[in-house]
Amino acid sequence: MAVLEEGGKPSDQGSGPLAIICGGGSLPLAVADAVAGRGRRVVLFPVRGWADPAAIAHYPHHWIGLAQIVRLQRLARREGCRELVFIGAVLRPSPRQLRPDLGTLRLLPRIVRLFLGGDDHLLTGLGRLFEEAGFRLLGAHEVAPEILVPAGALGRRGPSPRDLADIARGLSLISAMGPFDIGQAVVIADNRVLAVEAAEGTDHMLARVAELRREGRIGLPKKVGVLVKAPKPGQDRRFDLPSIGVRTVAGVATAGLAGIAVEAEGAIAADLQDTIRAADAAGLFVFGARADGSS
Amino acid sequence: MAVLEEGGKPSDQGSGPLAIICGGGSLPLAVADAVAGRGRRVVLFPVRGWADPAAIAHYPHHWIGLAQIVRLQRLARREGCRELVFIGAVLRPSPRQLRPDLGTLRLLPRIVRLFLGGDDHLLTGLGRLFEEAGFRLLGAHEVAPEILVPAGALGRRGPSPRDLADIARGLSLISAMGPFDIGQAVVIADNRVLAVEAAEGTDHMLARVAELRREGRIGLPKKVGVLVKAPKPGQDRRFDLPSIGVRTVAGVATAGLAGIAVEAEGAIAADLQDTIRAADAAGLFVFGARADGSS
Repeated sequence: MAVLEEGGKPSDQGSGPLAIICGGGSLPLAVADAVAGRGRRVVLFPVRGWADPAAIAHYPHHWIGLAQIVRLQRLARREGCRELVFIGAVLRPSPRQLRPDLGTLRLLPRIVRLFLGGDDHLLTGLGRLFEEAGFRLLGAHEVAPEILVPAGALGRRGPSPRDLADIARGLSLISAMGPFDIGQAVVIADNRVLAVEAAEGTDHMLARVAELRREGRIGLPKKVGVLVKAPKPGQDRRFDLPSIGVRTVAGVATAGLAGIAVEAEGAIAADLQDTIRAADAAGLFVFGARADGSS
Repeated sequence: MAVLEEGGKPSDQGSGPLAIICGGGSLPLAVADAVAGRGRRVVLFPVRGWADPAAIAHYPHHWIGLAQIVRLQRLARREGCRELVFIGAVLRPSPRQLRPDLGTLRLLPRIVRLFLGGDDHLLTGLGRLFEEAGFRLLGAHEVAPEILVPAGALGRRGPSPRDLADIARGLSLISAMGPFDIGQAVVIADNRVLAVEAAEGTDHMLARVAELRREGRIGLPKKVGVLVKAPKPGQDRRFDLPSIGVRTVAGVATAGLAGIAVEAEGAIAADLQDTIRAADAAGLFVFGARADGSS
C-alpha cells in the first residue's frame, strides 16, 4: 500500500518535476492534472501507439517507443526528473513488436525473460530496471490519491445482502487466482461465477456476459450480479491497479448486472464523479469493499 | 474416480436395463451404443430442447422435460430401470423456464435451492433426489469406459517441454479455482493465462482466444499455448466430466494453439478416434496428463 500522509496527501512532492509515462485511456491526464494542480511540474512521456495525443498536448512531453527505455531515462534525466509514474493501459506487445533503442538492446535478454512471466512479473521487472538506473518509481495513487476509489456505497444505490455475498465471493476468487497472475476482475451473480477476466480485459468480459444473457444462458433476472475488481494479493501497487470508469458502467448496465464493486483504495478511476453519476443514472451501485470484508 | 474392474471394463452390467438421461451433443449416443454393444438393454430419456432427436431414434425412448423428475422416475421404474446415467450438455436453465410436473412441484423449494449454488451443487443435489427415490446413479464412464480419454500422447504429436509446463500450470489453476465451482477449462500459453472458462463454455472461450490473436493482443507465435481441461477437485464424476471432440480440435486450431490436454481418465470424448485424426490433420497434439504430473 502507498505511504500517504494523514489526510491522504501525497507523501512527496518536493523532489523536482515528475515524469509520467503515459499509456492509453483517460487516467494519465487525470494524474497529470492532479499533480500539476498541486503545483508540481510534470513532464509526460506518452507511449507511441497507446497514449492519446490530445490528452498530453497541454503538458511538456516526449513521445517514446515502448522499448526505448534508455532513451526515456536519458530524456527524464535531462528534464531533471528523478521520480517516475507509470499510468494507463499498455496492452502486452509481442517482443517482436518492440523496436528497442540502442542502449536498450543490451538489456534485451533480460527484457525477453520478463516477457515470459505474467503481467506482474513483467511490470515488477521493468520497475527494477528503472530503480537500478537511479530513478524512484511511484504509484499513480501516491502522487494523485484522488484517483483511488474510497470505501462504501459511492452513489445513490448500495449493494443488497445478496450483492454483498457475491462481492465477498468475487474477492476470494480473485485472491485464489493470485498466484497465477491473471486478470483482476470477475462477474458473480447469485453466488455463481459467470465470467473470469484473463487476457481479454474487462470490457470484453462484460460484453460476453451481455451476450450470455441475450442468449438466455444466464437464467437470472436483470439487476442480479456484480462486477468485482481488486488487485491481486501481493501485487506491486505502483503498477496496474484495476480501474473503473464511465465505460465500465455502460458495460455493466448492458450485462444486466446490479453494480460494480472494487476493493476500497485498491482500484482507481480517472473520473470517479462522472462514473458515479453514470451509475446513478443507470440505477447501478458503485461500492468500495474493505479488504477485511466490512462495508 | 469411477470403480472400474481391471482392464477398464464396467463394474456392473447386470441389473436390468439402463436409463440414460440424454442432454445435447454426441456423447449420449456414444454411451448408448457402447452399453447396447455389450448386450445390455438401454432406455433413453432425451431432455426436450437439448437432446438431438436423430441421435436417439434407434433406441426405445421417452422425451422428458427438464423438471419432470417424478415423471422420469415413474417411466424409468415402468421400464424396469434401477440404474441411471446422466450424459450430454444441458445448459443451466432459468428456474422460471422449468415446467415441472405435478409431483416435481412438491420438490420445487429444494430444486430452487439447488439452483442457488454452482453447477456442482446443482448436479449433486439432483443426484441425491434420485438416490432417495431408490435409483442408483452411475457415471457415463462407468458404463462406457471407452469414452474416457487415456494417458499419454494420443496422436502423432506430443507436447513440447514448454507445452508440458503450460499443462501443469493449467491443471493447478483449475485445481485452485475448484472451491468456486467454475468451468473446467483454461488456456495457458508460454506460462501466461490467456483465458478462463466460466459460464460461456469451451467453444466460446476458444473463439475469444482466436479473436485476441487476430487483434494482435496475444503476442506469441502460432502453435504456442494449450487448452487444458480437467474435472474440479472433489467433483462428483458421475456428472459433467469435461469433454473434448472434433469441434474442440477446430476451435483450438483457430485459436492458434499447439494442442489439447486433459486429465487422463478425467475427461470424456464421444469420438476419440475422430478427434485424434482431426488433431493429426491440423498438426495439434491431444494429451492425457496424469493427475500426479507424470506424462
